[in-house]
Amino acid sequence: MTKEFRPIPLKRKNPVPSDIEIAQDSDLKPISLVAEELGLLPDEIEFYGPVKAKVKLDVLDRLKDRPDGIYVDVTAITPTPLGEGKTTTTVGLSQALGAHLGKKVMTCIRQPSQGPTFGIKGGAAGGGYSQVIPMEDFNLHLTGDIHAITAANNLMAAAIDVRMLHESEATDEQLFNRLCPADKSGKRRFGRGMQNRLKKLGITKTDPDELSIEERKRLCRLDIDPESITWRRVVDTNDRFLRGITVGTGDEEKGHERNTGFDITVASEIMAILALTTDLRDMRRRLGEIVVGTSKSGEAINADDLGVAGALTVLMKDAIKPNLMQTLEGTPVFVHAGPFANIAHGNSSIVADRIALKLADYVITESGFGADMGMEKFFDIKCRASGLVPNVVVLVATIRALKMHGGGPKVVAGKPLDPAYTDENLELLKAGLPNMVHHIKTARKFGVPVVVAVNSFATDTDAELALVRKAAIEEGGAEDAVVCRHWALGGEGAIDLARAVIEAGKKPRNFHFLYPLEKSIKEKIETIAREVYGADGVDYSPEAEERIASYTRLGFDKLPICMAKTHLSLSHDPTLKGVPTGFRIPVRDIRASVGAGFLYPLLGKMSTMPGLPTRPAFYDIDIDFETGRVVGMF
Amino acid sequence: MTKEFRPIPLKRKNPVPSDIEIAQDSDLKPISLVAEELGLLPDEIEFYGPVKAKVKLDVLDRLKDRPDGIYVDVTAITPTPLGEGKTTTTVGLSQALGAHLGKKVMTCIRQPSQGPTFGIKGGAAGGGYSQVIPMEDFNLHLTGDIHAITAANNLMAAAIDVRMLHESEATDEQLFNRLCPADKSGKRRFGRGMQNRLKKLGITKTDPDELSIEERKRLCRLDIDPESITWRRVVDTNDRFLRGITVGTGDEEKGHERNTGFDITVASEIMAILALTTDLRDMRRRLGEIVVGTSKSGEAINADDLGVAGALTVLMKDAIKPNLMQTLEGTPVFVHAGPFANIAHGNSSIVADRIALKLADYVITESGFGADMGMEKFFDIKCRASGLVPNVVVLVATIRALKMHGGGPKVVAGKPLDPAYTDENLELLKAGLPNMVHHIKTARKFGVPVVVAVNSFATDTDAELALVRKAAIEEGGAEDAVVCRHWALGGEGAIDLARAVIEAGKKPRNFHFLYPLEKSIKEKIETIAREVYGADGVDYSPEAEERIASYTRLGFDKLPICMAKTHLSLSHDPTLKGVPTGFRIPVRDIRASVGAGFLYPLLGKMSTMPGLPTRPAFYDIDIDFETGRVVGMF
Repeated sequence: MTKEFRPIPLKRKNPVPSDIEIAQDSDLKPISLVAEELGLLPDEIEFYGPVKAKVKLDVLDRLKDRPDGIYVDVTAITPTPLGEGKTTTTVGLSQALGAHLGKKVMTCIRQPSQGPTFGIKGGAAGGGYSQVIPMEDFNLHLTGDIHAITAANNLMAAAIDVRMLHESEATDEQLFNRLCPADKSGKRRFGRGMQNRLKKLGITKTDPDELSIEERKRLCRLDIDPESITWRRVVDTNDRFLRGITVGTGDEEKGHERNTGFDITVASEIMAILALTTDLRDMRRRLGEIVVGTSKSGEAINADDLGVAGALTVLMKDAIKPNLMQTLEGTPVFVHAGPFANIAHGNSSIVADRIALKLADYVITESGFGADMGMEKFFDIKCRASGLVPNVVVLVATIRALKMHGGGPKVVAGKPLDPAYTDENLELLKAGLPNMVHHIKTARKFGVPVVVAVNSFATDTDAELALVRKAAIEEGGAEDAVVCRHWALGGEGAIDLARAVIEAGKKPRNFHFLYPLEKSIKEKIETIAREVYGADGVDYSPEAEERIASYTRLGFDKLPICMAKTHLSLSHDPTLKGVPTGFRIPVRDIRASVGAGFLYPLLGKMSTMPGLPTRPAFYDIDIDFETGRVVGMF
Repeated sequence: MTKEFRPIPLKRKNPVPSDIEIAQDSDLKPISLVAEELGLLPDEIEFYGPVKAKVKLDVLDRLKDRPDGIYVDVTAITPTPLGEGKTTTTVGLSQALGAHLGKKVMTCIRQPSQGPTFGIKGGAAGGGYSQVIPMEDFNLHLTGDIHAITAANNLMAAAIDVRMLHESEATDEQLFNRLCPADKSGKRRFGRGMQNRLKKLGITKTDPDELSIEERKRLCRLDIDPESITWRRVVDTNDRFLRGITVGTGDEEKGHERNTGFDITVASEIMAILALTTDLRDMRRRLGEIVVGTSKSGEAINADDLGVAGALTVLMKDAIKPNLMQTLEGTPVFVHAGPFANIAHGNSSIVADRIALKLADYVITESGFGADMGMEKFFDIKCRASGLVPNVVVLVATIRALKMHGGGPKVVAGKPLDPAYTDENLELLKAGLPNMVHHIKTARKFGVPVVVAVNSFATDTDAELALVRKAAIEEGGAEDAVVCRHWALGGEGAIDLARAVIEAGKKPRNFHFLYPLEKSIKEKIETIAREVYGADGVDYSPEAEERIASYTRLGFDKLPICMAKTHLSLSHDPTLKGVPTGFRIPVRDIRASVGAGFLYPLLGKMSTMPGLPTRPAFYDIDIDFETGRVVGMF
């Protein structure tokens, strides 16, 4: 029934053309063929045009007895601001396994926000001869999942403000009459969306008319404290003027103005939920548990209290299905969910990984930022929620980043690189190696074998590459360390890496979490700070202390921790490179994503809404009416 | 090659179940079969799951020599606030033509906003046994066109605010250096997005370095007057707290705060453009011509001046393709574009109608509100832009609405109807007939034959129905007037209507516009006010006078007029029923949608952002996990 996999031959050129030229020049399989090669049944697929499809979660029932494939997480050393090619490596490794070594492979990566596409050039679909295509679809709209999140997030926001307004203008009895109106026969009933609030309040009566005056008030008056509201609105646009706004300045809302703001959609808790949910029913529960603020008496108010969680689930019912695309060499890719990598956990979805592990022998996924950030969250948050057990970590390193950690000059996006980075400099490199060694050891603390992928540039020398390999294996204890050239060569440039991953995947699984959930909030934070960041300890602001007390009282203290830290240093200070020592982590504040299921301590100011430069990337983007193609993207 | 059309048999019940029960109980054709029956080629279709597809505009090239089908617009008399069943009639008539009379038919209707779905119960997909299905898809997301509009609209908004900020912080030379940066070789170039501004400024130089100091300033400093900005942000959510907002209150934007607001997405000018555009190149031009405000010296600033129109086109490139769905009886439907029916023209898209007219012998479309509103705009704005010639107008009337016009008690949504409406009352009915007669005569002024569809309710009596038919034909000059029961019976209930439409469609075409574009703004407004509304004249506020002078100076006075008037009266006053006389129309203000291509005089306060009630419809909406179905919608 399954069609045999046939790779798409690359049409390689030298010098390597721009990403969009390569992508648009490539042959594409119909997505129906990609699905067929994976062994998906026609009923399990929903097409979105000829090159994208959604895969239904039903496939998990059919394949539930099939053993999972080898589960590989691609992470990186502490990166320069330019990034070290993690997505490119993820795609290149997949192309090597699938198109060159005959393995059944799936790649699972995040969907990027559409906002930055129009801000600063640079796609998120990999690069060179290791890309996910078509890149226009990958970077724009895709199948509408992020738009669904925008709609759901903003329906909740509208529900909060309008509820406060209506409560302020009505007596308890009026509220009861409006929320539980009598039908034509004079009979009142509870709405479906009221059931979870009734349960929470311990009200078991089924006839609204039997409620006491006090119960009517408790049911109908949420009494939200406007100052407590943490739920913000979202758009998938880089719009810095929405970072801070005052709503309700219209004539009919005057007197109810409130200061709030918009985040970019991928920072919505609903995106984190999409990434962490395991099925539709679980998503319904998580959406209901989203805490948006507290009542004036300090009770947590969630989406179920607002009666809106069912509607949010309906808005998200298609978004939960992973999106199938392909690499330049025709191997299958799931693109699904893209939560922020600082205030959220920065990993693609659990449902995509689950399905992929049933369909393929090797599943290559990527976690956000460096190993101290995305990988730690992949293990302690994502794998805890999914129950899936990782087999191998691929740690991407570059000579450039290692030299920076060794004390090289500052690396700035858009500025030419200092010769220290392009000429051989073994001393600088050697001084930077401890950063890589630290990350290898962190992964090994979780019991997962590490393969280092040295993503090599044309200027790297053999002596430099050899030095990195030696340190990775001998000092870090990596299983192997392999030089890769997938950017220039596609899968062929990552064959050695693929072979090393196959070997490492044969080791018995020995995975464990860094901390048990039962520990206190502070104990969990301190474990991460000491074991992963190398800090001497943690200091809490008075606000953070207050939040910890409040979350503990509300019962949210058994959630895992999602540290909101800079990715540019192992510490909280982006200027500290290499392996900083003798520092303490300051926790400025702590927030709760109760629906997604984690607490996120803020170690600094985290921007949740990017801006546009004076000359945004959109200046070059257009349609070429001769060819009908998109031009100027990337 | 074309498969013969096979209707889906209705599973009718009595009493008629709820809309969602009927819709979910119905059998669906795979959308591939609907496409095949229409004679579409596989390459011309893009599937969006199993029951929705987009049709590519290429089909117009293939069929360009095929004659157009009969083009029918369904409109209504002045409605009650409950609506008189125009969409239901549009669908029922189509089902009669296609499933019962063997005609090749297509239905072209608007996509509704998602916002109201969660506010007050009531879908937009028709009702009873005359519906477009699946209604969940119809009312939620569809294929993402409205989401694309949200993204495009808000990218422009972000571009405006950030441009003003950057201009305020930079010298002319800094702006020039940022907007025309030198590349690695030291060479500057103009971005693709600058070409139209260069043309507008009359700058023909191709090397930025050759620009004079003055030219650099003119190119780079838009000098937008913040007070002049008419471009607002949009969300497809009923969020009244966004009607008025202050943006830029964040720490990094302080000092640049601005009062503005959000509209619901369907009120975006980009939605009006989607509805009025004829192809991708035309859409690119219209998007570029959107005027967002003026410079401090009074020059109109448009999207091309901001360099963002190419990116807007790229965001909208898939939205331009009409969406194929089906009726309960399996006839094909295009659902495409849904501009507001007051501040915009309230008609579905030109591209859908064009394709439909090539694929089918009868194309049934609908225009918003009553004949004085949507139909007039259908003729003077939409048909003018498309060049398509309408054959027949179907005017929907109900005994209920006619009695209201005759002086019956107030009709209020959610309240029981007065017995005057449910008992026979020939006097009241007779007194209301002039409203219908007026609308028939209006349609005939455009040279289009009229068929009246009396959408009958169970309480209507034979004597009442006969009275309406007689007046329509004898007093109004309608070709025919037919009693319909498609809500209860599906297409079978509209067979007589379909036969009357077929007859009327045989008359030679004699269509003409109400006014030529060359007339002045005031002459055009007065023509509509006198000829369509029956007003004695028009009064202009000082603001309106100022705008007329300004638009005339800017050259926007040759655009057609889109009156923003209440739909609940022929006059500007919603309480005046029947055929009001002795009134003058007050023009409070005038706005320009230059990209869409019309001016819209405001005759009253038009809400462009609905709110949510205390108990929004979302309280009942959820997934039933036993069946996997959406429950509680409608």
